Amino acid sequence: MLKNTEEFREPTVSTQPIFEGKVISLQVDTVSLPDGKTATREIVRHPGAAAVLALIDDKMLVVEQYRKPMEKFQVEIPAGKLDAGEDPMVAAARELEEETGYRAGKLRPLSAFYTSPGFADEKLYVYIAEELTLGESRPDEDEYLNVSAITFEEAQRYIQEERISDAKTVLAVYAWHIYRLTGEI
Amino acid sequence: MLKNTEEFREPTVSTQPIFEGKVISLQVDTVSLPDGKTATREIVRHPGAAAVLALIDDKMLVVEQYRKPMEKFQVEIPAGKLDAGEDPMVAAARELEEETGYRAGKLRPLSAFYTSPGFADEKLYVYIAEELTLGESRPDEDEYLNVSAITFEEAQRYIQEERISDAKTVLAVYAWHIYRLTGEI
Repeated sequence: MLKNTEEFREPTVSTQPIFEGKVISLQVDTVSLPDGKTATREIVRHPGAAAVLALIDDKMLVVEQYRKPMEKFQVEIPAGKLDAGEDPMVAAARELEEETGYRAGKLRPLSAFYTSPGFADEKLYVYIAEELTLGESRPDEDEYLNVSAITFEEAQRYIQEERISDAKTVLAVYAWHIYRLTGEI
Repeated sequence: MLKNTEEFREPTVSTQPIFEGKVISLQVDTVSLPDGKTATREIVRHPGAAAVLALIDDKMLVVEQYRKPMEKFQVEIPAGKLDAGEDPMVAAARELEEETGYRAGKLRPLSAFYTSPGFADEKLYVYIAEELTLGESRPDEDEYLNVSAITFEEAQRYIQEERISDAKTVLAVYAWHIYRLTGEI
């Protein structure tokens, strides 16, 4: 059993704003440490994002898109960042329909996690979509993607091939695996 | 089956360096889109990181530390960023011993994933530790943490309580769950 060691908290001595972008902002905080010294913490602020695990007839909806930071195409579950003040579940429903054309009659929380707790505050909310019906696909203007539905075996193979290699999608495939083993998700 | 839609690639028109830090750097790329327009991509560069799922007598080794970006204490599997040019498996072994005092006789790859493919190139390599023996704990100078071993039930509860809420540790607990169900990891 872990104790909360209050003295390990890192009070801010000063904050230096570095960058304010469309998606992220960056600041460098100087913090004081338990031994009285100071250290710097490079911190990326992000509005958070929502993603959807959508299973249809034993297949998972995925989108393939180019990811500039890695200069690679990646196969991922539908996702997108939250608009200011937006409820993550609303964002999940919006992104699912925008990216795939499917509407979820029901969304249930699967997981929520910080992607990179060492340097970013991005929190990613993952939902399970139920009661799916086909609506109309409307990707964002500067978003070019390729929608498909893949089997569990394809998902496993894509992970081996690193066509699937992002945190939320790998996690979704693990959850799907547990679902196949237990019937629960 | 997804096709690689080559035209969706995003060639760089120009790169603006913004920040060069101790842990991350930031740049803004202008890219050209399939329709001939341009868009900007905010890109965080990170050296990558390694993490370890270490099970001892049916308990998982975790460390609790303060995470400045979220201003919260977090319970996580042992992890740390790669030194320049460092093999991720070497980093995993190093971080495990530095943070917990345990040495792994053997490390096996469990997963590797990009934490935030929308804005960062950070890749996280997760290993499974085997043949653990107690060495000597030497945390980094400005790293204050609290080591423990938790049961599967505690891990599940910590996820509910959001004391565990980072991508690598949630993923490790999912992998542990699959291991408990199938005997394979």
